[in-house]
Amino acid sequence: MSTILRPRDLAFMLHDVIGVERFANHPAHAGQTRADYDQILDLAEGVATREWAPLAARLDVEEPAFENGRVRIIPEAKAALDAYWAAGFQTAGFAEELGGMGLPFTVAQGVSAWFNAANVSLNGYAMLSVGVGAMLAAHGSESQIAEYLPPILEGRWTGTMCLSEPQAGSGLADIRTRAEEQPDGTYRLFGSKMWISGGEHELSENIVHMVLAKIPGGPAGVKGISLFIVPKILADGTRNDIRLIGLNHKMGFRGTTNCALNFGDEGGAVGWLVGEKHNGLACMFHMMNEARIGVGLGAACLGYTGYLHALEYAKERKQGRAPDMKDPTSPPVPIIGHADVKRMLLQMKSYAEGALMLVLYGASLVDEARLGDEGAAALLDLMTPIMKSWPSEYGLRANEIAIQVFGGAGYTRDYPVERLYRDNRLNHIHEGTRGIQGMDLLGRKIPQGGGAGLHRLAAAIEATAGEAAMRPGLSELAESLRYAAARAMKTTETMTGAAHAAGPAAYLANATIYLDMLGHVAVAWLWLKQALVAEAALEGASGEERAFLSGKLTAARYFHRYELPAIGPACDLLEAMDRTCLDAAPESL
Amino acid sequence: MSTILRPRDLAFMLHDVIGVERFANHPAHAGQTRADYDQILDLAEGVATREWAPLAARLDVEEPAFENGRVRIIPEAKAALDAYWAAGFQTAGFAEELGGMGLPFTVAQGVSAWFNAANVSLNGYAMLSVGVGAMLAAHGSESQIAEYLPPILEGRWTGTMCLSEPQAGSGLADIRTRAEEQPDGTYRLFGSKMWISGGEHELSENIVHMVLAKIPGGPAGVKGISLFIVPKILADGTRNDIRLIGLNHKMGFRGTTNCALNFGDEGGAVGWLVGEKHNGLACMFHMMNEARIGVGLGAACLGYTGYLHALEYAKERKQGRAPDMKDPTSPPVPIIGHADVKRMLLQMKSYAEGALMLVLYGASLVDEARLGDEGAAALLDLMTPIMKSWPSEYGLRANEIAIQVFGGAGYTRDYPVERLYRDNRLNHIHEGTRGIQGMDLLGRKIPQGGGAGLHRLAAAIEATAGEAAMRPGLSELAESLRYAAARAMKTTETMTGAAHAAGPAAYLANATIYLDMLGHVAVAWLWLKQALVAEAALEGASGEERAFLSGKLTAARYFHRYELPAIGPACDLLEAMDRTCLDAAPESL
Repeated sequence: MSTILRPRDLAFMLHDVIGVERFANHPAHAGQTRADYDQILDLAEGVATREWAPLAARLDVEEPAFENGRVRIIPEAKAALDAYWAAGFQTAGFAEELGGMGLPFTVAQGVSAWFNAANVSLNGYAMLSVGVGAMLAAHGSESQIAEYLPPILEGRWTGTMCLSEPQAGSGLADIRTRAEEQPDGTYRLFGSKMWISGGEHELSENIVHMVLAKIPGGPAGVKGISLFIVPKILADGTRNDIRLIGLNHKMGFRGTTNCALNFGDEGGAVGWLVGEKHNGLACMFHMMNEARIGVGLGAACLGYTGYLHALEYAKERKQGRAPDMKDPTSPPVPIIGHADVKRMLLQMKSYAEGALMLVLYGASLVDEARLGDEGAAALLDLMTPIMKSWPSEYGLRANEIAIQVFGGAGYTRDYPVERLYRDNRLNHIHEGTRGIQGMDLLGRKIPQGGGAGLHRLAAAIEATAGEAAMRPGLSELAESLRYAAARAMKTTETMTGAAHAAGPAAYLANATIYLDMLGHVAVAWLWLKQALVAEAALEGASGEERAFLSGKLTAARYFHRYELPAIGPACDLLEAMDRTCLDAAPESL
Repeated sequence: MSTILRPRDLAFMLHDVIGVERFANHPAHAGQTRADYDQILDLAEGVATREWAPLAARLDVEEPAFENGRVRIIPEAKAALDAYWAAGFQTAGFAEELGGMGLPFTVAQGVSAWFNAANVSLNGYAMLSVGVGAMLAAHGSESQIAEYLPPILEGRWTGTMCLSEPQAGSGLADIRTRAEEQPDGTYRLFGSKMWISGGEHELSENIVHMVLAKIPGGPAGVKGISLFIVPKILADGTRNDIRLIGLNHKMGFRGTTNCALNFGDEGGAVGWLVGEKHNGLACMFHMMNEARIGVGLGAACLGYTGYLHALEYAKERKQGRAPDMKDPTSPPVPIIGHADVKRMLLQMKSYAEGALMLVLYGASLVDEARLGDEGAAALLDLMTPIMKSWPSEYGLRANEIAIQVFGGAGYTRDYPVERLYRDNRLNHIHEGTRGIQGMDLLGRKIPQGGGAGLHRLAAAIEATAGEAAMRPGLSELAESLRYAAARAMKTTETMTGAAHAAGPAAYLANATIYLDMLGHVAVAWLWLKQALVAEAALEGASGEERAFLSGKLTAARYFHRYELPAIGPACDLLEAMDRTCLDAAPESL
């Protein structure tokens, strides 16, 4: 069985780079030790590798089907989810008093990494359920928490996010689902929801839909959106008025059912308001932000797994000779001996490990913020669109390259790399498209709090660069990081300075390029953080551990030399506030 | 029915930019006129759009299957190919005395563009058959031409290229198939071939396999490879000793069967030597070079079709508002109104139209060379790996972005963009991987003839830049092109100057980055060529034509401003002869 993630690397990121043990300083995690964290990660590795990974290909080929109004899924999928639920992985990040393990958020993401890497589409059900639980714990009433959270944490009920509608995907202001208040304080919901992952299936006893809808008479646009709990099965055991219209048939990510649902075809689906009226989007963003981190994690893990498959193949497959080996009777070499194959592997490694480090570091900001660090909260806000998008872009690229390393074999369905590529193509789309993330970063997160998030990032980068500058082996990377960070800051200042005069449309016209640029700077920084730890440990290391640490240094150098310089032209373009795209006449395209 | 290519654009490239009519100066095309060319292009559009395009989705879903030793393909595929053959499109580029239409190669590629855009996997059969015919016409004996060419040109027989073997894909030096000479001058072939497109099917009466094999006793490596005609059905109507072992099940490009074939399981497959013994690779490269152009054309057309689908969707789909439209009760706008969507469309347009122009321009060098221009032949050699790879990279990127424009809908199998994306992922792999193309460009084509190809490219670029520099509207692009070309030349000089001291492994270590860089310069040049023509015609144009010409200018500006600057960091890296990848220890990856 192939490795799907490297446990040593996960431990390196969680312990050696982030140092998750210090989160035990928080009362919620008091008394926890590294051994506790390692134990749950080991357990996750076991269940993910044994129970989940072998089903990934089958869930792709034998995808869920809509038959007689019901969803048919291979029964092994339920068994695999049951094993996950029985072990309690879904409770990892919940407080002990709620029935959870009370682990730091970062460790819970580490646990989730195993399931994302093993079977990303099966993990869709788990991730959404955890998200609904966390959102209810934060925004639900006491009675809602008491009613819905226990069965979710016991793995009996699952959850969904019902935002999009056929006419309103990215444009939530235009949703039409309406919620009519009843004399008893409940609501009746009417409307059509689209792209609902996990919207219908028989993997759980009940499905808790979190539904955005408008209460008639409320404000127009997003300010008139409220959030409702609308369970598939009501407390009395009858079915709520929710109908599965059909399943969407996707290119990948096929194990997660993706549904068109009608609410209220037969008199109104019963729902309960969560939080305040017309404040639904704020509540939903609690869940959305976690989901965006989850999407980034999934994208990183897909890229990572693809990388490991390609690496294994490159070590085994023999083909060709080095350019200076002229003797055609010499035996062909493993293709990992070819410079261009090593280039592809380093590119994938720098993307996949860089993306995973980015998401885990970002997750650690949740824990830092819980320890009372306000700057961490500001940086988390800034990083969330990057944590979602950068892995979606470069994890996918890693999957694309994995196919290339395999050659023709990688293009066949006999190997998993083409499936991982198809799966990962979703991640730039759901939970806010790449374009939405760019607007969120440049339009909201950069100016937010007087630029607090970006200043915190710049300070953190300088701290790392300062440390690295003192180490001869890393001074080159310290310099390239300082240069890149300075360029990013100057570009940001130029843009924000010109924003008022240029107007919001021009300011935001190249937002996705900004998103990509700042993501590169953040990942280059985190590569240098990894390199610092690796370099310090290298002297005393030998064997596999030494090779592992050397690999971190090589990948950091690769990323700084081959990838980071791409920000130069991007910054030039951004500073010029180029209007080529904004001004392009639609009829000329 | 959606447009799959724009006839106006094809005419713009062929007539306004390239000026194919001047090839009628060659005796082989004497008397031909623009009207002749337009007529065959119109006819191709009709057959491709009506007969081929509607089958593309079906050939993907109901892919060819291996049943009881035979291949089952939906019968409509044969009907569609029969319509193509009946109209004689396969003869477009063949000389009249051979039974062909005698069109310039460039026009034949224009005809082929329609079929690539309509149904790239059906076109696999057509392209390979034309390739076998052209190679036999060039290298076959008189009797071989007389026996094999007529049925190929009549569309009764198809062809294949049998190069790869299970243990030898990119490494042809290691093929093991052997050909034993018989007293009667024929050969008996024994061996296994892999990845054989069109290797078995019942779409034609016979399949002419062009097989690389080694005659025992010959030199080791590629110098001991000979080329054989090995037909599926022998002249007496009996089956040759060729057995279909199985079909490869691909991510995309599914309509083209991809086969594992055994030759000689039952005593030896009968074959006839083509050309000289041990000179098979040179003959095969005739076909391979045409196939590489064909792959580039297919990749460009897939990207182009994806672009047109996304463009159509972006004009129809309404979602969201501009950043400065604050009124949520205003109606949502077509997404083509959003700057980021226009950015995606311009990126796709610059890639897809840039790739198509690149391939058609490259094809025109075949015709120039036939007119006796030796410099054109040198430039063609140089451009071939770029014509194959640049469209494979950026056509695929266009398909990736097309999905993004559609959002969730694009990720479903209800729209063609995900299929086009899957189809296009093949093109970097077959007919020489991206890595092979990079080595070919930097290792062979750049030094070849004392750098004749590159010098010709530089001169052609300067001619275009000089012309553009005189036009106020284009002087910016003239400058960016001159700067880019100068950087590319300097980088090449630095690398070739350092090559001897560094050794071949270091010289070639970053060859694929060089390939990509020079491709960008070539495409930027061809965008400026298009812009020059468009700008000159703009003043007198109105309506749709004016919008079309404006679009060319906008896309040229987009490519120069947003894409071309990426060569800067690439050139820095190349000039440094960076060894990060070359020196990476496999065990550290």
